[in-house]
Amino acid sequence: MTRLPALIPLVLVAALVSPALAQAPADFVSLEAAQNAANAAAGPRAVPGRSIPVPPTASPQLQAAIAAPYRLPAWDANPKSAAEWKELIERLAAQAATAQKTIREKLGVTLETATVDGVRVFILTPKDIPPANKDRLLVHVHGGGYVYNPGEAGTGEATLMAAYGGFKVISVDYRMPPDFPYPAAMDDAMTVWKATAATHDPHKMAIFGTSTGGGMTLAMILRAKQEGLPLPAAIAPGTPWADLTETGDTYKTNEWLDNVLVSYNGYLRHAAELYANGHDLKDPQLSPIYGDFSGFPPAILTSGTRDLFLSLTVLTHRKLRRAGVEAELQVFEGMSHAQYNFDAFAPETKEAFTEIARFFDKHLAQ
Amino acid sequence: MTRLPALIPLVLVAALVSPALAQAPADFVSLEAAQNAANAAAGPRAVPGRSIPVPPTASPQLQAAIAAPYRLPAWDANPKSAAEWKELIERLAAQAATAQKTIREKLGVTLETATVDGVRVFILTPKDIPPANKDRLLVHVHGGGYVYNPGEAGTGEATLMAAYGGFKVISVDYRMPPDFPYPAAMDDAMTVWKATAATHDPHKMAIFGTSTGGGMTLAMILRAKQEGLPLPAAIAPGTPWADLTETGDTYKTNEWLDNVLVSYNGYLRHAAELYANGHDLKDPQLSPIYGDFSGFPPAILTSGTRDLFLSLTVLTHRKLRRAGVEAELQVFEGMSHAQYNFDAFAPETKEAFTEIARFFDKHLAQ
Repeated sequence: MTRLPALIPLVLVAALVSPALAQAPADFVSLEAAQNAANAAAGPRAVPGRSIPVPPTASPQLQAAIAAPYRLPAWDANPKSAAEWKELIERLAAQAATAQKTIREKLGVTLETATVDGVRVFILTPKDIPPANKDRLLVHVHGGGYVYNPGEAGTGEATLMAAYGGFKVISVDYRMPPDFPYPAAMDDAMTVWKATAATHDPHKMAIFGTSTGGGMTLAMILRAKQEGLPLPAAIAPGTPWADLTETGDTYKTNEWLDNVLVSYNGYLRHAAELYANGHDLKDPQLSPIYGDFSGFPPAILTSGTRDLFLSLTVLTHRKLRRAGVEAELQVFEGMSHAQYNFDAFAPETKEAFTEIARFFDKHLAQ
Repeated sequence: MTRLPALIPLVLVAALVSPALAQAPADFVSLEAAQNAANAAAGPRAVPGRSIPVPPTASPQLQAAIAAPYRLPAWDANPKSAAEWKELIERLAAQAATAQKTIREKLGVTLETATVDGVRVFILTPKDIPPANKDRLLVHVHGGGYVYNPGEAGTGEATLMAAYGGFKVISVDYRMPPDFPYPAAMDDAMTVWKATAATHDPHKMAIFGTSTGGGMTLAMILRAKQEGLPLPAAIAPGTPWADLTETGDTYKTNEWLDNVLVSYNGYLRHAAELYANGHDLKDPQLSPIYGDFSGFPPAILTSGTRDLFLSLTVLTHRKLRRAGVEAELQVFEGMSHAQYNFDAFAPETKEAFTEIARFFDKHLAQ
């Protein structure tokens, strides 16, 4: 399973002092001087424009994802009306839903639709459920910036968790803007959590989701604590949108490098305001990084080195740890935002979900 | 202990579709178009030149470190002779040694010099050793690209571990180029490990180090396995120089952003060749990422989002996990390479070492 690159030619010189600069890029000396000058005083970091190669340290499948162009029209959508939003959302969701059907078939996962106290859900069931997971149930909240991925389009991560973890998963098809801004999504997710935790043992349950689903996972625990509801035995907030404002270093350092979200000034800014609908973006129910993480269940977080939300992931991880919560972090080489969900058959995808499944297996009662 | 920033002004608009672009940078629309065009085909990622602010999500002390200029002359040193190397190394080491004395006094750590089977070491002892740590002993290997930090200059991390973890630490003052290239450093480190593991219970011992010290920590375990020596109960390779070739995505993505190492084409390339002295840079004793990690002791790895070695850290973490090794990862917001060692009194410094100490406490016998 090694993914390490083939030997990179490097002239090895036995002399005490080697002519190493000859191997550095031809323009290095002038760039070095310009950069030293531009960074000679304390302050913001001046970084030059660059062409950054696809790293050979990722699998071929992940390399293809890293090399891919920015995702248009998703990343910088800026619809001018509710009708325009809906047209875009439905068009993207239809494409994703078709792809999901094929992936489920290949992975041997079946999908059923249902409602839980009036909320639409999908139930994902793997071909084989190991005995240890027979009574376990996972609740999934999908990503998409609170606007994308309604319906089957939002079930991809639930399918991967069902397939690679051997779990039964309920994925919440929560209501979204433009018709249903905050708190509709959270109300729906909590309705499903409350209902399922009443009919199943919450010690045998977990909540997980990526991006907006990761933010919602954290907000659900905050709200469950507040409402005195039972908590799940573990959570897996993947690269969580834990802060809807542009706060966190990698919002800037990984801007234009992450080929999924690309920049906060793409659709994210518009989606945040559309969802918040006038609520304070720093309310912990919208930006859970501002909440109190004490008493949270054990958590495993996932991100990538090119992820626009790498800072949100590590800030959440550190805040959980400072609150005394058992929290693990996994960060994948070269990955942009949520890219462990993109190619169902990339080794990194299987690796990410296998780690999450191992973490759940450790913490969920049987 | 919250370090979250004060409220960032954000005009909240209750209307369904908000004039959000007005809040984006003025040049966003033209940059968006140029970037979409530059990234329209699969391939390398085109990233524009930028000025990246100091993140308010770090502590004031860490913000000062993030804002600091590139470290001259350390980062891009390119001495033309052994004499020039020695002059630079001694000058930088003298400065660091003076600073270390003050830090030890403030933290209540004492330093003694000693030799172990002919190898020079420093013994760092905290004012108070908790009962659980009474019989525990840590072996430290310092960083500095196999050239910097001889003598007391290399003891900073050992002092922090002694102070914040309450451990007795032996720090190896291994021989280095230009006079002593590979394998002198590893020979010295192994001599100390072999001798101390013979007189102490290795189940009560750990090995740790940052950067070059992190790479050496990994290489020491590979060599101990090979030589049939006992292994420590845990290791803490901090942002390890696990690959002496320029392999790993953040060598490129964090180039010019990391204000400590800045670029592989600075001193690192020269130091790697000076140390290797004609040996294959991809030999696992020089680049342990190419070694077999099976049977490794539990490991905790530390890095930062701006670290040039973030990829080396996460690649090492993933490879340890794939080998079935218990391995934890902590990544700090906005940090460049090894910056958790820089300001002894920054909250992130204490946090990083407290986590490592907790990990050691979990795995070391008493």
